[in-house]
Amino acid sequence: MRTPRIHILTPITGADAYVPSQFADLVGTFVTISCSAISRGPASIESVADEMMAGPEILRSCLALAADGVEAIVIDCFGDPGVAAARELLSIPVIGPGQSSLHRAAQLADRVGVVTMLDNVLPLVRDMGLRAGLDGRLCSVRALDIPVLALEGEHFAQALREQALAAVRDDGAEALILGCTGMFGVSERLSTYLTGEIGTYIPVVDPISSAVLDAVALARLGLSHSKRAYINPPARTRESILTLR
Amino acid sequence: MRTPRIHILTPITGADAYVPSQFADLVGTFVTISCSAISRGPASIESVADEMMAGPEILRSCLALAADGVEAIVIDCFGDPGVAAARELLSIPVIGPGQSSLHRAAQLADRVGVVTMLDNVLPLVRDMGLRAGLDGRLCSVRALDIPVLALEGEHFAQALREQALAAVRDDGAEALILGCTGMFGVSERLSTYLTGEIGTYIPVVDPISSAVLDAVALARLGLSHSKRAYINPPARTRESILTLR
Amino acid sequence: MRTPRIHILTPITGADAYVPSQFADLVGTFVTISCSAISRGPASIESVADEMMAGPEILRSCLALAADGVEAIVIDCFGDPGVAAARELLSIPVIGPGQSSLHRAAQLADRVGVVTMLDNVLPLVRDMGLRAGLDGRLCSVRALDIPVLALEGEHFAQALREQALAAVRDDGAEALILGCTGMFGVSERLSTYLTGEIGTYIPVVDPISSAVLDAVALARLGLSHSKRAYINPPARTRESILTLR
Amino acid sequence: MRTPRIHILTPITGADAYVPSQFADLVGTFVTISCSAISRGPASIESVADEMMAGPEILRSCLALAADGVEAIVIDCFGDPGVAAARELLSIPVIGPGQSSLHRAAQLADRVGVVTMLDNVLPLVRDMGLRAGLDGRLCSVRALDIPVLALEGEHFAQALREQALAAVRDDGAEALILGCTGMFGVSERLSTYLTGEIGTYIPVVDPISSAVLDAVALARLGLSHSKRAYINPPARTRESILTLR
Amino acid sequence: MRTPRIHILTPITGADAYVPSQFADLVGTFVTISCSAISRGPASIESVADEMMAGPEILRSCLALAADGVEAIVIDCFGDPGVAAARELLSIPVIGPGQSSLHRAAQLADRVGVVTMLDNVLPLVRDMGLRAGLDGRLCSVRALDIPVLALEGEHFAQALREQALAAVRDDGAEALILGCTGMFGVSERLSTYLTGEIGTYIPVVDPISSAVLDAVALARLGLSHSKRAYINPPARTRESILTLR
Amino acid sequence: MRTPRIHILTPITGADAYVPSQFADLVGTFVTISCSAISRGPASIESVADEMMAGPEILRSCLALAADGVEAIVIDCFGDPGVAAARELLSIPVIGPGQSSLHRAAQLADRVGVVTMLDNVLPLVRDMGLRAGLDGRLCSVRALDIPVLALEGEHFAQALREQALAAVRDDGAEALILGCTGMFGVSERLSTYLTGEIGTYIPVVDPISSAVLDAVALARLGLSHSKRAYINPPARTRESILTLR
Repeated sequence: MRTPRIHILTPITGADAYVPSQFADLVGTFVTISCSAISRGPASIESVADEMMAGPEILRSCLALAADGVEAIVIDCFGDPGVAAARELLSIPVIGPGQSSLHRAAQLADRVGVVTMLDNVLPLVRDMGLRAGLDGRLCSVRALDIPVLALEGEHFAQALREQALAAVRDDGAEALILGCTGMFGVSERLSTYLTGEIGTYIPVVDPISSAVLDAVALARLGLSHSKRAYINPPARTRESILTLR
Repeated sequence: MRTPRIHILTPITGADAYVPSQFADLVGTFVTISCSAISRGPASIESVADEMMAGPEILRSCLALAADGVEAIVIDCFGDPGVAAARELLSIPVIGPGQSSLHRAAQLADRVGVVTMLDNVLPLVRDMGLRAGLDGRLCSVRALDIPVLALEGEHFAQALREQALAAVRDDGAEALILGCTGMFGVSERLSTYLTGEIGTYIPVVDPISSAVLDAVALARLGLSHSKRAYINPPARTRESILTLR
Repeated sequence: MRTPRIHILTPITGADAYVPSQFADLVGTFVTISCSAISRGPASIESVADEMMAGPEILRSCLALAADGVEAIVIDCFGDPGVAAARELLSIPVIGPGQSSLHRAAQLADRVGVVTMLDNVLPLVRDMGLRAGLDGRLCSVRALDIPVLALEGEHFAQALREQALAAVRDDGAEALILGCTGMFGVSERLSTYLTGEIGTYIPVVDPISSAVLDAVALARLGLSHSKRAYINPPARTRESILTLR
Repeated sequence: MRTPRIHILTPITGADAYVPSQFADLVGTFVTISCSAISRGPASIESVADEMMAGPEILRSCLALAADGVEAIVIDCFGDPGVAAARELLSIPVIGPGQSSLHRAAQLADRVGVVTMLDNVLPLVRDMGLRAGLDGRLCSVRALDIPVLALEGEHFAQALREQALAAVRDDGAEALILGCTGMFGVSERLSTYLTGEIGTYIPVVDPISSAVLDAVALARLGLSHSKRAYINPPARTRESILTLR
Repeated sequence: MRTPRIHILTPITGADAYVPSQFADLVGTFVTISCSAISRGPASIESVADEMMAGPEILRSCLALAADGVEAIVIDCFGDPGVAAARELLSIPVIGPGQSSLHRAAQLADRVGVVTMLDNVLPLVRDMGLRAGLDGRLCSVRALDIPVLALEGEHFAQALREQALAAVRDDGAEALILGCTGMFGVSERLSTYLTGEIGTYIPVVDPISSAVLDAVALARLGLSHSKRAYINPPARTRESILTLR
Repeated sequence: MRTPRIHILTPITGADAYVPSQFADLVGTFVTISCSAISRGPASIESVADEMMAGPEILRSCLALAADGVEAIVIDCFGDPGVAAARELLSIPVIGPGQSSLHRAAQLADRVGVVTMLDNVLPLVRDMGLRAGLDGRLCSVRALDIPVLALEGEHFAQALREQALAAVRDDGAEALILGCTGMFGVSERLSTYLTGEIGTYIPVVDPISSAVLDAVALARLGLSHSKRAYINPPARTRESILTLR
């Protein structure tokens, strides 16, 4: 049994890329993980404008990664920037943590909440729910009011616990999604906290981990996105991506 | 890294259960697979009435499997019979191929088709789409008009190709789901056929394989269904399951 | 003008069945009412698991009642357990109080609330609304946190008034449904109470009474459920219902 | 047990009102039926403009009927003209055949078709489905292209059979509604015809009969429309209805 | 370039019609504005019953205006009374401020609030949102509990600020619509107030101004409503409008 | 009365920008029109990937135009590329022809069709309908299978007439939208053609003209998009737009 190679592409320049060992507990030797960040683009993605500025470099990176033989790409940002466009260009799976975690959570509960960093992205999150057909299931979308690049420390942990508990207690969420891939590593602790407060188990979905396991699944199933839904653009488009800077 | 144990429960008495080796290509040594069928119940599931007749034995089997230490259960029937009820009783993941493949396909295409065996289950499939919130994405639901227990041979293969092609060509489906777990093993060939006829890649989702890989993902992610959505029933209920025959 | 015979089937073993005289004020001599309870099954229905355990005996009873010449069957449980399956098996009307009262209330008001017994059934009620297409009209679903078998006395009456008033005052409900057939007999008093508190007439729908009058209507109209929506299962299914215990 | 009095108000001037004996088979002596038509207004209702021209006289008639002691009013037109406005003015039930038959059919089948007289009213019928929340269930809306006042004879019967069969065979309807109260008396024959052609039972709902039995049910249940949804207008309004001509 | 003539028809008798100079700042010399009120009908429109009483005279006035050569008609009432019916009768654009402002606001924000005068019209406003397909975007519908004919003075201004602020702060509205054309002239001040309180710009749409500019746009674009959606009624209908009083 | 200045920004490099005189018939001297195209970017926009490649230069141009004092910007591409992002950056109105024409057509008819150039953009158009809440109204989305840069000549005119007629006759569209701003100038002729074929008036909306008149309306109304829905991004974002190339 061969080992598929999955690449995690971080679409910002303001943070280190992941290192593969961070995913060792998750995937063992079932797949090979590689990681990188784009070299030009915004320091973080906290608006639609940031997504657009990151776009061209995401597409260039995806073309290069596919040419290099990776078998699936995960875009490391909850807003799934560039995923639809990259799917047009490629036949290997391109996976966004936003869509992956929304569908994951919707299979674990009827009513789902998302807790994200800044108010700026609340409209994006609601829009993702609408496009996934899951807006009727998205009962709570809350922000911590903390910028992505400042999401460490006790201030963050405290704000996250507060908003997460409000999503469950006041808005009726039965499962939660961390609405920013920068929150990597806290889902288990948050689930334990909420389960303790509420008295019943509340799952918390980590979006990048969910996306990596969807990449694993697609690689194993031999499936990719439909090329009738994500149609190959004219040859001209690919050229403009490679030459336009 | 320990190896989770996933059990595939076939909820009918009219067919052999799977054997684990059938899933070797899919999961390698990443998880351990075990398989069994219920010992009392309908010969096949082709109606809501069949689902109800299989129900009590599915629940008894799930309780026994969980007591025996399995870490996730996949119910081997596209209609997901007993999944919601078993989730109330258990804290380990219980996964249905119907819900799994609907969400899988909805992430690969905008417009999804399902091809199933008998007209009888068309209302069930549409209802699954509605409850998943994906009814707006389900553009085609078709039946072969062949009973589940007769789904082998060239007659079946021919009918499947015809209905699948009609779903794509006439109804606009961009991805297909095999709407019966009895169709195991034909998805890849059907995808190749459709891709050839249409000229662009059309993914075909095998429901039991999709569900197994969702079980893998949940086991790895340490996630299960929310116990606030699938609430523990009164103690009385568990007792009636174990004693009532 | 002949008198149709309508049977009310109580799908639990923990309570007495109705007696026909309880419906005398409702139907006079327009139809004949008969009543019975199933002889094997759960003591009450407060979960999906309970519904599944009651299922086989509901189907057996329905087959026997139809063979005995009843002209319509009402299943006496707000969750409508077994209704879809029984409709597959029978050509006479089979009516559930949940669906009946949701459609009744939706014709009397734009925004409808349901007050039920336990949190466990809240997901079921919301799911009923979704499947009826009335989820957009269901503005409030509340539970008393009292088990079905303890629903008498002043504690129950007090909790019901509180939750009902909250549904109207806080959630905007314009009409209410009693979300458990065990609440039989209190709708009129509750409506009077709410109308007094709010200052405008608030209808309260009793589900079993609503279902009985839908049975009357169908019998008079000569209508039953479409056999193209509730398709006859294979002959095998009927056999398994009669023999499998 | 007293006998409620139900009045059927025909909101046009171009046709005779019903006579009570036409409903004898339907309601026996369970209720008393009375009938009348408005004395000023359009000859038939085949547009929104016709509905508006009939409006003031419908309201005047409803006020007079309520003052005269009728206990429920059925407006005899599929478009339910004046129903919402009359409900604001009255506390006794006012029932429209359109809404009644849509909810009736939606309880008998998943996918419902409506066959009406003229193209002009197709937008009205679709709009009724949307407002009832049942647009997702309304799979077919067809017109015979025959004016309401010419709906007798073999030409009508032939056109009705054709469109009804197309609704079932081509559009997937599992139950049908006659989309004009002028089609009174043909539902049973049409159901027999369709059932013969299709090979499974297809219910056909007669809208005025359905509405009469909903009036019976509400009278028996002691229910009426919520006055929080259909709020009493200012006193000024009632006056303008009585004086403005 | 010729100058289209747009007429604003006030469908009540209890208030003065506008005078064209009130719209001078809005349209300059780009179009010609004329104004009138109906001569018979209700003093104000605060219920569905009022709408029906105004209906016949609105239709008569529209026929006369079109015969007189106006090129577009705006009905000056937020509930858009008579708009659909008048569109059936006419080929020139007939525009309602309710629909116009709902679509206007939906293009400026994701979540829209409406603040209207009386509770009586709350169901009408929600129904307008539903029919426009914008119910998912209508996050707040509030009433001042002040009759239309008393909407001046500081009491009104204070109530409007309170409800508008609650719509934004508590219900999440990002843009507001004034839900009564009687509120003409206050939108700018209210927007300034809300923007000051909230700290970000909140647009407030004045419905009659929005409708006038839609009339301008349609006249300039040479567009009108589809006569396939608003079908010419039978000749009989036009006659009944002209003769029936 | 001062004259607002509206700018039309063409977001591709493969075609000439408009010249203001092309809009003289539409806006006269009511507003001042200026036009330009971006200087770097794709030759045409026929995919999501093209939209992303045009994105950064659209944002830079919008910042420059606003700094230069234009009072509203129309992005000249049916897919509305960059509109949401530019709205975050600016307080003046930024208008997309796609959203404008969908809402325009939805006010003229119940069922709307879009005819666009290539299959590639069909998913984008359906997605625009979904996000506008108008998916239930979008009954037909068809492509000519002709690239944008080849849309002149009789071949184009013939294909357009064919697909437009099919949208109306076969799919039930009551109004049409030209799904590409490159089709400028043909809407009136197409409407005449369809009206002749069908026998009733069918409006055809030209998207860029519709957007220009929405810009006029917003400028006159003193309205812009809500800054609570299109929130100002961090200062960092504006900087990256100006410096990143």
